[in-house]
Amino acid sequence: MAKLFQLNLKKNKLKFSVTVTLKKDVLDPQGKVVENTLKSMGMGNLKSIRQGKFFEIEVDENDQKKAEEKVKVMCEKLLVNLIIEDFKITKLI
Amino acid sequence: MAKLFQLNLKKNKLKFSVTVTLKKDVLDPQGKVVENTLKSMGMGNLKSIRQGKFFEIEVDENDQKKAEEKVKVMCEKLLVNLIIEDFKITKLI
Repeated sequence: MAKLFQLNLKKNKLKFSVTVTLKKDVLDPQGKVVENTLKSMGMGNLKSIRQGKFFEIEVDENDQKKAEEKVKVMCEKLLVNLIIEDFKITKLI
Repeated sequence: MAKLFQLNLKKNKLKFSVTVTLKKDVLDPQGKVVENTLKSMGMGNLKSIRQGKFFEIEVDENDQKKAEEKVKVMCEKLLVNLIIEDFKITKLI
């Protein structure tokens, strides 16, 4: 019984992925360099490439709604520059 | 009819997203700094955070299988350091 309780405690976390991308009209010099490099390597039919950031976040919380709200606060306070970037939170299994 | 053809030409591209993450056993100092900063900002129930890269790639190709193969080659040749990183390709709508 005690063991079962421990197991439950261990499961007490939720995992989210966050992708942060530059807004459509913001220039992406880093992505441009990658694009030019790939093209010069012979990838002729590459049309465009844009680079962003990716985070994998584990939260100690068993209510999914609360956990998602927390991840959103993290994004808005630190991870994302809302003036030039968009973000998207996805629940991982 | 000519217009229809033009429309088809314009649609001649596929969009993929690529997420690049550090392998499980590789240290992530950048993610650790973000984690400590968030914790010091009062996010007590943050368990862990790991940072990765994200790419949005458009390919001039109408066969999805071929396009995906090309994106894979781009990842292996330039975007991903296969020794320490994993990558995942997803088709975007």
